[in-house]
Amino acid sequence: MPDTTAAALPHQGETVTVSAYLATRLCQLDGHHVFGLPGDFSLSMLDEMLTVPGVEWVGCTNELNAAYAADAYARARRGVAAVLTTYGVGELSAMNGVAGSYAEDVPVVLVSGMPPSRARADGLLLHHTLADGDHDHFVRAYREVTAAGAVLRAATAVAEIDRMLLTAINECKPVYLGIPADVAVARVPAANLALPLRRSPSDPTSVQQFRDALTALLAQHPSLTVLAGPRVHRRRLEGELAALADLPGVRIATQAGAKAMLDEAHPASLGTYMGGMTRSEITRDAVDFAPLLVLAGTTLSDVLTGLFTHRFTPEDAVELGFETARIGASLFHGVRMEDAVRILHETAAERDFAPLPPLPPLTRPEVAEGPASDALTQAQLWAEIQQWMPEGVTAIADAGTALYGALGLHMSHDSDLLAQPIWSSIGYTLPATLGICLARPESRSLLFIGDGAAQLTVQELATILHRGHTPIIVLINNAGYTIERAIQSPKAAYQDITPWDWSALPSVLAPGVPSLTTTVRTRAELAEALVEARESTDRLVLIEAVLDPSDAPEMLVELGRGAARANGAPSAPTEPA
Amino acid sequence: MPDTTAAALPHQGETVTVSAYLATRLCQLDGHHVFGLPGDFSLSMLDEMLTVPGVEWVGCTNELNAAYAADAYARARRGVAAVLTTYGVGELSAMNGVAGSYAEDVPVVLVSGMPPSRARADGLLLHHTLADGDHDHFVRAYREVTAAGAVLRAATAVAEIDRMLLTAINECKPVYLGIPADVAVARVPAANLALPLRRSPSDPTSVQQFRDALTALLAQHPSLTVLAGPRVHRRRLEGELAALADLPGVRIATQAGAKAMLDEAHPASLGTYMGGMTRSEITRDAVDFAPLLVLAGTTLSDVLTGLFTHRFTPEDAVELGFETARIGASLFHGVRMEDAVRILHETAAERDFAPLPPLPPLTRPEVAEGPASDALTQAQLWAEIQQWMPEGVTAIADAGTALYGALGLHMSHDSDLLAQPIWSSIGYTLPATLGICLARPESRSLLFIGDGAAQLTVQELATILHRGHTPIIVLINNAGYTIERAIQSPKAAYQDITPWDWSALPSVLAPGVPSLTTTVRTRAELAEALVEARESTDRLVLIEAVLDPSDAPEMLVELGRGAARANGAPSAPTEPA
Repeated sequence: MPDTTAAALPHQGETVTVSAYLATRLCQLDGHHVFGLPGDFSLSMLDEMLTVPGVEWVGCTNELNAAYAADAYARARRGVAAVLTTYGVGELSAMNGVAGSYAEDVPVVLVSGMPPSRARADGLLLHHTLADGDHDHFVRAYREVTAAGAVLRAATAVAEIDRMLLTAINECKPVYLGIPADVAVARVPAANLALPLRRSPSDPTSVQQFRDALTALLAQHPSLTVLAGPRVHRRRLEGELAALADLPGVRIATQAGAKAMLDEAHPASLGTYMGGMTRSEITRDAVDFAPLLVLAGTTLSDVLTGLFTHRFTPEDAVELGFETARIGASLFHGVRMEDAVRILHETAAERDFAPLPPLPPLTRPEVAEGPASDALTQAQLWAEIQQWMPEGVTAIADAGTALYGALGLHMSHDSDLLAQPIWSSIGYTLPATLGICLARPESRSLLFIGDGAAQLTVQELATILHRGHTPIIVLINNAGYTIERAIQSPKAAYQDITPWDWSALPSVLAPGVPSLTTTVRTRAELAEALVEARESTDRLVLIEAVLDPSDAPEMLVELGRGAARANGAPSAPTEPA
Repeated sequence: MPDTTAAALPHQGETVTVSAYLATRLCQLDGHHVFGLPGDFSLSMLDEMLTVPGVEWVGCTNELNAAYAADAYARARRGVAAVLTTYGVGELSAMNGVAGSYAEDVPVVLVSGMPPSRARADGLLLHHTLADGDHDHFVRAYREVTAAGAVLRAATAVAEIDRMLLTAINECKPVYLGIPADVAVARVPAANLALPLRRSPSDPTSVQQFRDALTALLAQHPSLTVLAGPRVHRRRLEGELAALADLPGVRIATQAGAKAMLDEAHPASLGTYMGGMTRSEITRDAVDFAPLLVLAGTTLSDVLTGLFTHRFTPEDAVELGFETARIGASLFHGVRMEDAVRILHETAAERDFAPLPPLPPLTRPEVAEGPASDALTQAQLWAEIQQWMPEGVTAIADAGTALYGALGLHMSHDSDLLAQPIWSSIGYTLPATLGICLARPESRSLLFIGDGAAQLTVQELATILHRGHTPIIVLINNAGYTIERAIQSPKAAYQDITPWDWSALPSVLAPGVPSLTTTVRTRAELAEALVEARESTDRLVLIEAVLDPSDAPEMLVELGRGAARANGAPSAPTEPA
C-alpha cells in the first residue's frame, strides 16, 4: 500500500540529494526499512538516506542475509524493500538472495554504493574492483538476476530511480541501482516527489475484451476451478480470492508458494495442489480434470507441479499473469492481475453456477500412534504442530523437511506460509524471519528450519534477538542434509554437518537478551515446549527438535525419489507438451 | 608443485567418469581438498569424485565460506583449489569469493553441479532456476569474475576440463566448470590422465631477447631496486627473491600483498612499500627514486600504492608479469615470471654491482608507554604481538584494523602474511583459516580478525574446530566497523554491530571439542594469553582483545582520511599519468 505520508512533500524549487530522493521514494512504496551493511563507497549515501524521516536502517551481519531479509520483508508487505551494499564485495555476496527474488517475483531494490564517477571513468585500480580497470563487471553480472539496472548520473538520477522502481513494482522483480559516491550526494529537484509512483493501470480496451471473452467462456462450463499461485500472494489478493470462493460452483486450490491464500477450512478450498504429490486424490482430480481451469498467478515449476506430474494442459487453461491475461491462445495485454481476478469474480457471479456437492474436509496431520515417551518422529512433530498452531500465524519454512512438513499443515484464516519452493535456497528463512518480524510486528512469526539450513545464515539470529523480536523457532536437528539424503547416498560423508549446541546459541549471540530455549526428543516434550512457547510472548523461543537423520515427511520422500530419477536417469522428466 | 603420484595412472582403453577425471586432474595439480556443500544436482558428481584416491571432501557451512577457504588453500599451496556447489543457489553464493580470487590472482576452480543436459536443453522450469526457461543466467554472470568458463558435454569434457585447468594455472585466475548431472557420470577415456597438465613454458626466443635487453639496461645503472608484489607470492618465488637479495647492489621492497616474501631482517630488505603510507621514508625514497626499478608481480592498486601516492613512473620501470616481461615500452611475451626472476638474478650477478651502504634496521612496533593494567590500545596490541610472534608463522589478517596492524609487524624468515589488500572483503579470513590449516598442517596459523568481520562468516569456526585444527585467533572486539569509522561518520548507527559473547562461541559451535578462550582488556592480560596460546598447541585458541571502537592503527587512520577524500571530494585522486 503506497504510503504518501511518510515524508513531507517538498515545494517547487527545493532540492534533495539523490540518496534522499531514493529513500523518500522507497518510503512512498512502503519500503521504510533498508537492509544491509556499510562500506566506504556507501557511507555518504547512508548518511543522506538516514536523514529522511521514516527510513530505518537494519544493519545485518552479511549481505546475503540482508538480501534474504529484504526479500521476506517485501513479500510480507507486498511492497518494495531495499538492500544497500557496498560495491563488489557487498553486492556479489547478495546476489543469490536477489536471484531468489527474481525467481519468486519479489520487488527487491539492490542499491550498490559505487566508487566516484570520475574513478569509474578513469578505470582506477581501486579496492573492491577486479584490478583490471573495468568497473562494470558487477553491473553486468547483475543483469542476469534483475529485471533492469542503472548506474546513476546526477543529471538523470530522478528519472532513472523512478524507472527502476516502476519496473520493480510493475514486473514484481528485483532491480539494480548503482550509485557512485559523488552522485549519492548530488542535489536534484525534489518536486517530482509530490507525484508518488504507482503501478501502470490496466488498459480499458483489453479489460473489456477480456471480460467479454471470459463471459463467453464461463457460459460454456458448469463450474470453475482456480489454481492460485505465488503471484496472487504478491498482489495481496487474499480478499478477492475469498470472495470468489464464496460463489457457487467455484473451487480453489493453491500452489505450494501460496498455500495459505485461502482459509483451508473454507468449503470451496481444495487445499494445496502439487500434481502427483497432491495429498488428496479429490484435489488432484479436481484440478487436473477441471471443466474450466483458471491459473491465477501460478508458476508451473518442478516442485510446484509435483515434478511435472500435472495432467491438465496449461495452454487450454485461462491464465492470469501480473500484467497479461490469457484465454487459450489469446493474450490480453495490459490486464493487471488485480483487475483480472475482480473480473473473474464479477463474471462468475453473473454466470451464477449451480452449487457443487460439498467437499470432504481436507486431511490434517494426525497425532501418530505410540507412547509419548518414544523418540520424536517427523509425523509426530507435524501432528503436534497442527494441534497447537495458533490462528493468524505467519509461518516460515526452509527448504527441506521443514517445508515439506509445513506444506502438510492445515492452515486457517489469516495465516501465511512463507517459503521459497521455486528458488529453494537453504538458509533463506532465518534472515527472512528478521524481515517478517519487521514487516509484521503485530503478529508472531513461526520459523521451521533444519540444522543444516540454519548453519548457512545463523548469524542473523543475533540481529533478531538484539532488535527484540520474539519469533518461535522450531529447529529440526537431524544431523545434516536430510533432503539430500532422501535423494541419493544417504550415508555419504557430505550429508553430515557438524553438531552444535543449539540451545546455547541465543545467549551467545545476544548475551543479556532474554530468550527461551528447549531441546525436545519426545512428543510429550515437544507438546510442553510448544505450550510454553505460546505463553512466552515477550521473548524469542528456540525449540530444538531432535529427529532421526533418515526420517522425513512423506512428501519429501516422494520428492526425493522423483529428483533422483530426474537427475540420474538419462531421460529426465519433461513438461507436458 | 604438480603431484603425479596421487592417483594411479590408467591404462589405454580404460575409462573414468567425467567427475573422476576432474578429481584426478585436481589431485595432479595439488588440489586434493574439495570445498563446498552438496546439492541435489551435484550428488552424483560428488559420489564419483570421492572414489578417486587422494580426494578429500571439506564440507563447509555455506558457499561463500567454501570459496574463501578454497582461495586461501590455493594461495598457501600455490596450486589449484576446487569449490563444489550446486547450481544457482550455491554458485551465486560463492561469487564474491571467486571474484576475490580473480582480483588477487588465485586459481580457484568453481565447479557447479547443474541440472541434466536434457532439462537444460528443454529449458525446464526447475528449482534453483529463475523459472524463465533460461538455464544459462549464472554461466553468463560468472563470465564477469572468471578467466574462462565451460559447461561440459560428455564428448568434449576431457578437452574442456584440461582447457579450463590450464587457463587457471597459466593465468592464475579462477575458472568456471558447469557439469550437468548426466555428464558428471558419463564415462570418458582415462588415457589422457597419464599426461599431467603443466604451465606453458617460456618462449626461448623471447627469453633471450629479454635477457639481452636486461643486461644492457643493468649496465647503465649503479644498483637495482625490486618491488615484489602478490604475484611473486603466487608463483612461490621466495627462494629466488632471497637469492637476488644476496647480491650486492640489490634492494627489495614488498607490497602489502606479499609482505613476508623476504625476511624483513635481511640486510637488503626495504620492508613494505605503500607509496605515501610507507612507514619509513628511506624505503619510500628507495623505491620512488630508484635508479632502476623492477616491478615484480606487482599490482598498482589504491591500497597497495598508498592511494596512488607512488612517485615512480610505472612505464619507465621493468615489469615482470605472469607470462609477459616488459622493459619500458617493449613487451616480451611468453617470458614466465619464474624465468624472468631467474634471469634478473643471473644478469644482476653478472653485472656485479658495487655494494650499497647498509640500511638502518626497519622499525618494529614498540611496547608503548603506560602501566600494564591500563585499557589495551591498538599500539600495545601490535607491540605485544611483535614481541611474542614465533618464527615461521602463517599470519592471516582481515581487512580493517587487523590488516593495517599486521602490516606494521616485522616478519621473519619463513613467515607468510595472507590478506586481501586488493579485494578487501571483510570476513574473508575466518574461512581462509580453514583453508590454510588444511594446506599447511605442519605450521600453526595465526588469525587477526575484527568482530565486525568475524560476524559475516563466523559459522566456519565450527568446521575448523570439528576438524581438529588448532589456529590461534586474535579477535579484535571493538564493537563495530572501525575501518569505516576511520573514514566517515564514526558515531553513525550503521557502524555498530551487535555484541556477542565471543569467548563462549567455540564451545557452542563445537561442544566437546577442546579449545581455549580468553578475553583480554589490558596489555598484561594479552601478554599472558599469548604465552598460554603458544603453549596450548593441541587446541584452537581464541583471544578476544577488547579495544576502543575509535582506536585504530596509524596506517588505517591515514588510509581512512585518504579514502574519505577520494569518495567525498568532487576530484578523486588519480593515478599518476
